[in-house]
Amino acid sequence: MELDFLTRLVIPNTTRIILLSLDGLGGLPHPETGKSELETARIPQLDALAARSACGLIRHVGPGITPGSGPGHLGLFGYDPIRFQVGRGVLEALGIDFELKPGDVAARGNFCTVDGAGRITDRRAGRIATELARSLCARLSTIRLDGAQLFVEPVKDYRFALVLRGPALSGKLGETDPQGLGVPPLPVRALHPDAEPTASLVNRFVESARSLLAGAAPANMILLRGFDRLPELPAFPEVFRMKSAAVAAYPMYRGLARLGGMEVLKTGPSFADEVTALRQQWEAYDFFFLHYKDTDQAGEDGDFDAKVAALERLDSFVPEILALRPDVLAITGDHSSPAVLKGHSWHPVPALLWSAHCGADSVKAFSERECAGGSLGVFPAHHLMPLVLANGLRLTKFGA
Amino acid sequence: MELDFLTRLVIPNTTRIILLSLDGLGGLPHPETGKSELETARIPQLDALAARSACGLIRHVGPGITPGSGPGHLGLFGYDPIRFQVGRGVLEALGIDFELKPGDVAARGNFCTVDGAGRITDRRAGRIATELARSLCARLSTIRLDGAQLFVEPVKDYRFALVLRGPALSGKLGETDPQGLGVPPLPVRALHPDAEPTASLVNRFVESARSLLAGAAPANMILLRGFDRLPELPAFPEVFRMKSAAVAAYPMYRGLARLGGMEVLKTGPSFADEVTALRQQWEAYDFFFLHYKDTDQAGEDGDFDAKVAALERLDSFVPEILALRPDVLAITGDHSSPAVLKGHSWHPVPALLWSAHCGADSVKAFSERECAGGSLGVFPAHHLMPLVLANGLRLTKFGA
Repeated sequence: MELDFLTRLVIPNTTRIILLSLDGLGGLPHPETGKSELETARIPQLDALAARSACGLIRHVGPGITPGSGPGHLGLFGYDPIRFQVGRGVLEALGIDFELKPGDVAARGNFCTVDGAGRITDRRAGRIATELARSLCARLSTIRLDGAQLFVEPVKDYRFALVLRGPALSGKLGETDPQGLGVPPLPVRALHPDAEPTASLVNRFVESARSLLAGAAPANMILLRGFDRLPELPAFPEVFRMKSAAVAAYPMYRGLARLGGMEVLKTGPSFADEVTALRQQWEAYDFFFLHYKDTDQAGEDGDFDAKVAALERLDSFVPEILALRPDVLAITGDHSSPAVLKGHSWHPVPALLWSAHCGADSVKAFSERECAGGSLGVFPAHHLMPLVLANGLRLTKFGA
Repeated sequence: MELDFLTRLVIPNTTRIILLSLDGLGGLPHPETGKSELETARIPQLDALAARSACGLIRHVGPGITPGSGPGHLGLFGYDPIRFQVGRGVLEALGIDFELKPGDVAARGNFCTVDGAGRITDRRAGRIATELARSLCARLSTIRLDGAQLFVEPVKDYRFALVLRGPALSGKLGETDPQGLGVPPLPVRALHPDAEPTASLVNRFVESARSLLAGAAPANMILLRGFDRLPELPAFPEVFRMKSAAVAAYPMYRGLARLGGMEVLKTGPSFADEVTALRQQWEAYDFFFLHYKDTDQAGEDGDFDAKVAALERLDSFVPEILALRPDVLAITGDHSSPAVLKGHSWHPVPALLWSAHCGADSVKAFSERECAGGSLGVFPAHHLMPLVLANGLRLTKFGA
């Protein structure tokens, strides 16, 4: 189902919608108890809501495919994440709250160490501190190029983001990281004839960087990879015809929401702050994307108990969210992060969709196993938004 | 899966198949009891059959999309309803049992009122009675056009259907209804260069209509919209290689079956009449499409109890249908029509598929909730026919 097919069916309404993404929500059973994080946690609010909701499992990209946060959230926003791909450089820039503009090309950068002959001796320059990287980025920011504006922004440790802004830039560029030691960095190659001018620009930048960093050992050179142009996404507020806001404390998720054209609301660092921001702006928008990070953090740390605790904390916020009386509330995640796998995984993610017209199924608890028997079945993430719109009575009939 | 892929696998057999469509079958829980129409109704026959069947939920068009009767039935007939779209004008003509032919272009018409300067003062001409519209249609039918035969048929109240028949007509035409008062009707515009000659024809018809209706206030002008050409559907009996008949008391469903190339059997107005027709013609066809209207009517009226009663009435006919000893019996609907929503809805529709080889699952009752746990899962309507054929042992193996 194409987005423009959907847009033609969208009708205005005054219903209000919340999409709550619990990052890395899905889990796997603990080997000792046989129960997953969701099955272990005491989450009476989520369970009660699941019992009144249509439930299912979301498979974000495809069978067996582990989604990154980018495709995971783009899917939830209604974009087919295989069709609308976001490059790693773009995600790196979004992750530091850099305001990318249409046409921008971004890359991930490493500071590295090269010997006198220019051969790489350490691909991460001894994992230099973020503070040092910050001053080196400032130095690289002084480089001037004909035809493009340049941004060099520190990320963490030895990592930085490079953004080029200018007319007719291409992201179809190879990487300079040879992925090994004892060889010099590769020149940037154009992967498409159209990208030749951008490749020349970047190579000039790299040579200037080499001169500027010559005395800055161990961080005396850079490596660049993950070049990509900001993807052109149909704007979420136009596709779904809703005034749309994102409430997310973490830069990456603000960035992804901005990519879709949502307004990003000011919020403090905690989920309590996010809920406060939601309440304060409740009257001003039709649609809210609300993001909860703690579940993923605990999963990636491999800390089963911390993930259980994160779920229980989230559960305690549900009454406050329901008190706003949303017409539609969807709760799911962008991917699974089972503590036993210490990272993202391919397992489909529990989803509940509540509205006055959702058609509750036989699911009685919010868990991987229960949701597998729900009326929504196992479904692609980009099918969620049409369901959300339908439940908000914002879609008209197709055909007479 | 393309239809021609399927057709290549079809093999002859003598098995007999019934596809029973309970119009608007799916429902939603009553707010007081928490039970849907199907869960409230006493339907022992359907429940027993579900227990012996493979069950699931059919999603006709896409997630969240509410199907009209056209796409709803085309899906059940095996056509992807997004790929094979039927315009509103065509559906209007089918709905009055007009026998459209390949190449025909149809539109929906309104009688309206215009003032002395030709500006619309009432888009529905005071909702004139069907009888008056009938005589005005007869008057418009006297119009003669070079290059096309003309049919002007009353529908209901102020509504009529316009059909043009002739060589090389196009349905790619804009509407004449400006959707507002105080302005004159729009001329018909060609939406594609190929449609210019048809646009001219229609504009000449409209001008002749203006003259003929000049003294017929309040119905002194017409508005036209929903132009479309009869879609070219691969013929159902050829795609699935079955002699196929439709038994439907309502014109719209006869029309849709005819669109797919099925033979339409003579029947009286009641479902009992339809079952009699089915029995009388039982030996003459491989495949029967049988349509039951009462469920949708009650749902659209918002009458929960009437929908329950309609389901119970239908249930009582099941033994009579089974007595014919079909090899395959599929029972589902073209869309949901929950009484609480007083109209069509996007909710997937319960489906049961019975044959000696269906592989019964754990479903024990015919309801939305039970079928959600069935072995067929949530599946697109156009996947039903391949399953039906397979159960009729009419599909050979793919590959050696």
